[in-house]
Amino acid sequence: MATKGMSSSASTPAADPVALLSALIRCPSVTPAEGGALALLESVLAPAGFRVSRPVFSEAGTPDVENLFATIGSGSPHLVFAGHTDVVPPGDAARWRHDPFSGAVDEGFLFGRGAVDMKGGIAAFLAAAIDFLGGRNGTFKGSISLLITGDEEGPSLNGTVKLLDWAAREGHRFDGAIVGEPTNPKALGDAIKVGRRGSLSGRITVFGRQGHVAYPDLAINPIPQLVKLVRRLTAEALDDGSERFDPSNLEFVGLDVDNTAWNVIPAEASARFNIRFNDQWTVETLEAWLAARLDEAAGNEIAYELDLQPGWSQSFLTHSPELIDALSDAVEAVTGRRPELSTSGGTSDARFIKDYCPVVEFGLVGQTMHQIDERASVDDLRALTAIYRRFLDRWFG
Amino acid sequence: MATKGMSSSASTPAADPVALLSALIRCPSVTPAEGGALALLESVLAPAGFRVSRPVFSEAGTPDVENLFATIGSGSPHLVFAGHTDVVPPGDAARWRHDPFSGAVDEGFLFGRGAVDMKGGIAAFLAAAIDFLGGRNGTFKGSISLLITGDEEGPSLNGTVKLLDWAAREGHRFDGAIVGEPTNPKALGDAIKVGRRGSLSGRITVFGRQGHVAYPDLAINPIPQLVKLVRRLTAEALDDGSERFDPSNLEFVGLDVDNTAWNVIPAEASARFNIRFNDQWTVETLEAWLAARLDEAAGNEIAYELDLQPGWSQSFLTHSPELIDALSDAVEAVTGRRPELSTSGGTSDARFIKDYCPVVEFGLVGQTMHQIDERASVDDLRALTAIYRRFLDRWFG
Ligand SMILES: [Zn+2]
Ligand SMILES: [Zn+2]
Repeated sequence: MATKGMSSSASTPAADPVALLSALIRCPSVTPAEGGALALLESVLAPAGFRVSRPVFSEAGTPDVENLFATIGSGSPHLVFAGHTDVVPPGDAARWRHDPFSGAVDEGFLFGRGAVDMKGGIAAFLAAAIDFLGGRNGTFKGSISLLITGDEEGPSLNGTVKLLDWAAREGHRFDGAIVGEPTNPKALGDAIKVGRRGSLSGRITVFGRQGHVAYPDLAINPIPQLVKLVRRLTAEALDDGSERFDPSNLEFVGLDVDNTAWNVIPAEASARFNIRFNDQWTVETLEAWLAARLDEAAGNEIAYELDLQPGWSQSFLTHSPELIDALSDAVEAVTGRRPELSTSGGTSDARFIKDYCPVVEFGLVGQTMHQIDERASVDDLRALTAIYRRFLDRWFG
Repeated sequence: MATKGMSSSASTPAADPVALLSALIRCPSVTPAEGGALALLESVLAPAGFRVSRPVFSEAGTPDVENLFATIGSGSPHLVFAGHTDVVPPGDAARWRHDPFSGAVDEGFLFGRGAVDMKGGIAAFLAAAIDFLGGRNGTFKGSISLLITGDEEGPSLNGTVKLLDWAAREGHRFDGAIVGEPTNPKALGDAIKVGRRGSLSGRITVFGRQGHVAYPDLAINPIPQLVKLVRRLTAEALDDGSERFDPSNLEFVGLDVDNTAWNVIPAEASARFNIRFNDQWTVETLEAWLAARLDEAAGNEIAYELDLQPGWSQSFLTHSPELIDALSDAVEAVTGRRPELSTSGGTSDARFIKDYCPVVEFGLVGQTMHQIDERASVDDLRALTAIYRRFLDRWFG
């Protein structure tokens, strides 16, 4: 893979993305542990001129979580890079080719938990930013911030949401954001994310009347009634997709009946579902869609309740040509391929950032994330550094 | 209520059904405890000339259970009366008007757990049999046996099934059986049971492929597939009933999905059901009916398994005019009403006895069984004694 975008000045140890990623992987920051990862970032950012804060956030019932906010410059425009240093557990370490926290390099790959999700993105951006700032020799007029959380893989309550609020109260206003999550399905340059589907979960509970199976006339069985409601919701598609989005999709994830007996008709039955939805819907229009179909199927016969779960997110689509074009051009210049503008897949912290400024996402190849032998190609890591470096030139230029 | 069937010789304390029932209730024989109830029966039966055995049966994983078999005479015909002295727990004793094990008489009712289900039936038959035998003054040519178990309300593994087998091995052959369970919905004389529906339970499991809700194309959701199979089985009735039976009925009793997450499509989903079926079906024809409909709905798309549970019972209908007419005539003579020949309701140990001889069931009014303040009308108890007494005269006459 070509690395023609690499600046010749990116040769100090602090700005070498491979050394930086290897060091980050050696910090065992399994969510919600800090593991030394944020301290390591601070030790690189502070000497490069960044003002570093390490706010700790708390929430009843969840562990306290450390976070990092680093900023340099005070002018416009203001770019924020968002990411997380926490990682999911490694699983059975014995099944890894190299210890998941060794940061070993083998046959062109850097092994370790978090290599692609997403310590690699952080290492690449940090190397690119330091190189970019060094190349400007103190003439930089904009601002660059790093918003790094330790609570992306956990409950996500003491991370990006509170860090964004904290930064706003500190007076920071952002003009654009890049999230460094792995966005490429198979090869670097496949796709940047310019939006995300929304997510809404809910529970449908049907209330019957308990009784003995030998006397069905004295009972009301909620199970066939629930089944009727479930069938109604799976009978039609929500939509056919839109320009930048896949079709919205409802999946049932659970059926719950609190009954272990074989001769008792249960009192109630419930079904749980999750909807991933595109820009044709909001949580509000979805609720109306659900209620209309459930009411129709229920008629006067079925007593049911629909409970939407907290923690939903709306869908969003970023409309910033400056941000999207600058990133797409940088990807194409380094990889030779124009990336797809994608909105597929799961959610990310971009769903919180989009309320503050336009946000796009680009990082490494996600194939090995959350798996045994998670690993980043060393070539990809250097190319990603070059892409971020070109993007900074272009977006601030 | 008339008691014109009472014999004038039924005046010894041992043959008084009210005193006998009160004494039985004072034995706290909550299943599987013997509680002194079988010892009490033995102390009445032995002096009346019965040969009494008290076999104890065992089964791995269940408590040992005491049972009683008593027999008198050695000729034909041979009548067996079947019942159980074990009772269900009383629930909150403080909510009872009288202590559930006091046997108190109040306003014409005898209070206590087991009063109608079914120590009352046992007390009435015992009083009737002793009176009947006393009236024959040693000229009785037939045989009467009592087959009393302590495991009807429990797992039913160490009770009637083993006791019937034990009695057969001891050389006993029965020509007719009466079960003393409460068969009358509202008033004595409502109904005798001349058969029972069969019972069959099963589990349908659908196998999908686990995955993340954000990537439904990589998963197979078993929930809509299971729902389709459930709908197929509830789409049509099994039958319209037959001369002596209600329609057969399938009830779903459980839905099980082992998944607590909201963003995961589960690997499998299952539904549990119970069928109560009439004399148009056997377990074998039902299995074929189920498999045909499930296969049709599953097509090549749905991978499912049907597991029928052990412990099913076939339906049966008793075809013995001697037994049915003798009992119906006795009921009519005492209550002035011809009883309905019923097959409705739950199962009873008659389902085991029917493999040995024709069996009918008649006892007290079941309304308060298994409830707080279970109680037997003293008038009903004396009338039931008179009915059994007349039946003995007629069946042996
Ligand atoms: Zn991530
Ligand atoms: Zn009973």
